[in-house]
Amino acid sequence: MSKNLTKRSEDYSKWYNELVVKADLAENSGVRGCMVIKPYGYAIWEKMQAELDRMFKETGHSNAYFPLFVPKSMFEAEEKNAEGFAKECAIVTHYRLKNDPDNKGKLMVDPNAKLEEELIVRPTSEAIIWSTYKNWIQSYRDLPLLINQWANVVRWEMRTRLFLRTAEFLWQEGHTAHATQAEAIEESVKMMNVYADFAENFMAIPVVKGVKTESERFAGAIETYCIEALMQDGKALQAGTSHFLGQNFAKAFDVKFANAEGKQEHVWGTSWGVSTRLMGALVMTHSDDNGLVLPPNLAPIQVVIVPIYKSEEQLEAISIEVNKLMVGLRKLGIAVKFDNRTTHKPGFKFNEYELKGVPVRIAVGPNDLENGTYEIARRDNLTKEVVSKDGIETYIQNLLETIQKSLYDRAFEYRNNHITEVNSFDEFKQLLDSKGGFFAAHWDGTAETEEKIKELTKATIRCIPLDRVEEAGTCMFSGKPSVGRVLFAKAY
Amino acid sequence: MSKNLTKRSEDYSKWYNELVVKADLAENSGVRGCMVIKPYGYAIWEKMQAELDRMFKETGHSNAYFPLFVPKSMFEAEEKNAEGFAKECAIVTHYRLKNDPDNKGKLMVDPNAKLEEELIVRPTSEAIIWSTYKNWIQSYRDLPLLINQWANVVRWEMRTRLFLRTAEFLWQEGHTAHATQAEAIEESVKMMNVYADFAENFMAIPVVKGVKTESERFAGAIETYCIEALMQDGKALQAGTSHFLGQNFAKAFDVKFANAEGKQEHVWGTSWGVSTRLMGALVMTHSDDNGLVLPPNLAPIQVVIVPIYKSEEQLEAISIEVNKLMVGLRKLGIAVKFDNRTTHKPGFKFNEYELKGVPVRIAVGPNDLENGTYEIARRDNLTKEVVSKDGIETYIQNLLETIQKSLYDRAFEYRNNHITEVNSFDEFKQLLDSKGGFFAAHWDGTAETEEKIKELTKATIRCIPLDRVEEAGTCMFSGKPSVGRVLFAKAY
Repeated sequence: MSKNLTKRSEDYSKWYNELVVKADLAENSGVRGCMVIKPYGYAIWEKMQAELDRMFKETGHSNAYFPLFVPKSMFEAEEKNAEGFAKECAIVTHYRLKNDPDNKGKLMVDPNAKLEEELIVRPTSEAIIWSTYKNWIQSYRDLPLLINQWANVVRWEMRTRLFLRTAEFLWQEGHTAHATQAEAIEESVKMMNVYADFAENFMAIPVVKGVKTESERFAGAIETYCIEALMQDGKALQAGTSHFLGQNFAKAFDVKFANAEGKQEHVWGTSWGVSTRLMGALVMTHSDDNGLVLPPNLAPIQVVIVPIYKSEEQLEAISIEVNKLMVGLRKLGIAVKFDNRTTHKPGFKFNEYELKGVPVRIAVGPNDLENGTYEIARRDNLTKEVVSKDGIETYIQNLLETIQKSLYDRAFEYRNNHITEVNSFDEFKQLLDSKGGFFAAHWDGTAETEEKIKELTKATIRCIPLDRVEEAGTCMFSGKPSVGRVLFAKAY
Repeated sequence: MSKNLTKRSEDYSKWYNELVVKADLAENSGVRGCMVIKPYGYAIWEKMQAELDRMFKETGHSNAYFPLFVPKSMFEAEEKNAEGFAKECAIVTHYRLKNDPDNKGKLMVDPNAKLEEELIVRPTSEAIIWSTYKNWIQSYRDLPLLINQWANVVRWEMRTRLFLRTAEFLWQEGHTAHATQAEAIEESVKMMNVYADFAENFMAIPVVKGVKTESERFAGAIETYCIEALMQDGKALQAGTSHFLGQNFAKAFDVKFANAEGKQEHVWGTSWGVSTRLMGALVMTHSDDNGLVLPPNLAPIQVVIVPIYKSEEQLEAISIEVNKLMVGLRKLGIAVKFDNRTTHKPGFKFNEYELKGVPVRIAVGPNDLENGTYEIARRDNLTKEVVSKDGIETYIQNLLETIQKSLYDRAFEYRNNHITEVNSFDEFKQLLDSKGGFFAAHWDGTAETEEKIKELTKATIRCIPLDRVEEAGTCMFSGKPSVGRVLFAKAY
């Protein structure tokens, strides 16, 4: 298996596009802007889903399912949200095809089957969900309402890239309703923290927690909390958002509750989501010029065993030993695969598992059988060592933990080396191109300045970090006063 | 909690509609024909998903994800399939909304954002998937290709009913490709058997396995294998189908492979699916006039514990005992809930859990504490007994198994009492109305007779049972010769 993978240093973007396809994660479909998530990619997504779902349930949320379609009148009820998504909506206008009289064997839209009201394919589900919550919430006893949905959504993007920006993508969207502002804010912050925990401890991706500026906020939100990650090319990637919606949707859909004193009040809302975009973040955080590098937590195959043999007898002897090893590894919950295909050479297999990012590769040949050893190769740092078979199961278990941690540490070090304080716009522009990463700079707090910096540099304010230190300064662009630094970066 | 549930004997259909809503399974949404699956209903669906997913993986299938939209030209490539679904397609024609100049704050479809080619919201995914398989299959080494997808699909139904017939529903669809006809047929039969196993052993719903007649076959299939269940009102419900597609889709999408001799051949296909319709089958197989009856395998709460107390001290003493019991039950993997709400009386709680079909209810009061006992109530047969707390955990575990089995036995007995052999059309018509159920009758094998019987009685041929005995006879309608009996019934 020849990889023919473009090097990251040559063309990072090309490297990414090639890797996603060659490693069997996803590919473009025959439908403009929509991707096919291939089995290997989907298996990784399933691992993300399982862990997130566990975390959501542990924090008291239940899953439910709401319709794919949103009638136009319902969609436009919360004006800011509608305005924010109007330009990227797929719209269903008809409900029937008929035979095309001018084209034998072809179909055409039946003009007699026009919908009375157009249906929007959900770009996000606040409208449909809040229109439902109206009937579910009467009293403070019905609150908080803590619901999550796993679903597909559609946003008509003109320039698409696998996982990062696709017309259809998969995600989860949490939608909660609360009796007080404080509780709703607490929930938004809690879910941002769940996302940060997941990104860092499960995906080995370090993130900065912060809030978005007004212009980067979710349409219809009062505050958008976010986690921001840094890719190897120095560009940032928004990895998850959690919105405090205030009473905006409650007012738009007239969702009220009777408080303990019997008085009617509008409820307070949040929504929060992560998507298949995380697959892109995963690839761009850890992988290298040889292919994918998967943190053990996310690897569909954590350990692959490749036999090295010259005769059938050797393969048989190796298989007996390997089968014992596999039983031992599986007992520890380790996902192991024995690649005993006789149609491919070991070198081909090594290349394939390197490309697919399998964290640990074990090679075993006649010499190993004789010596009671295995050759263990790590995908993350490409090192190899020969290890005795005594206690090998525990050794592998520990090694997987070591790899998980070391991937995080490596990404964390890279990220920390790429948060640069800058104090002038010239310095910012120069380092933005030469070094990349996050830039902590003073900003005057106006959307106007933010917009101008974006026009001139393509960099945006990724977030106002939650842990930022109050510090009087002057805006690097306008020279006006500022109370603290925000993080700028070019972003995906 | 007053149930006010219509009795089944009064109006079965009304009973069903009310129960689905009152038991918090689902409700109609503000979008025509689309339902909201509520958290309690969705939790049951999640249990079905988890078990089916395990069974699919155990039989060698992987999950993947394909686009929601199918371009019209792709959709119409397999003509029979296209024709079969053309009349119920939701069609996306535009990709943008804009402000309505005549209506401040309202949006309208932007006429300048018309798609060059209309997109069909998938009613089923053969077209999009086979257009993808073309690139995935080159050689016999790429076969078999065994893929499943969990997804939403849309079929524009005019008359909808929660779970049974909705414009949008959730399902899984398996799509496999094989080198030979025999292998593809084997796969179709295997998956029908997986569905039957799931229905019977997990959902406690007995089914008849069979094949569909030509007129009831999936559009584009050569053979449709199915499992048919019987509801309490004597109507049948198709619970799952598995299609042998022959080379129809391979030819429509030009999917060929090089066989071992290097010769190009079209591949052979199957597809198979079950949907949220199974939720309807679940309700209508087991539930009663008091509400849902859930088989323990599918119950989100398997055991509920209700404290009976007059003072806070009593509740405290009970709680101490109950917490120990819960630890013990959870160790055995039993989903248990302690309903210690002080806002509701025991009677209210009893009613609620009866309505929601919780298989086992435990009541515990001061007398029980004194005597070392619990009062155990079964939801399936509404019996109660007082049981010593010694060994209670194992007792409950066994009881859950007993309930699972006894629900199956009850449904099996009902179903077997409702397969009636009939030999004349008059007898058939009379018993169809007075008794209901399946009718094993001779049929001449023509679509014409089948259609006439349907017109006159609303009954259809549910299937030609796989285990039917060859038996020369004469068609109950036309008097023409027949080689064996088929099963007729009115159906959902």
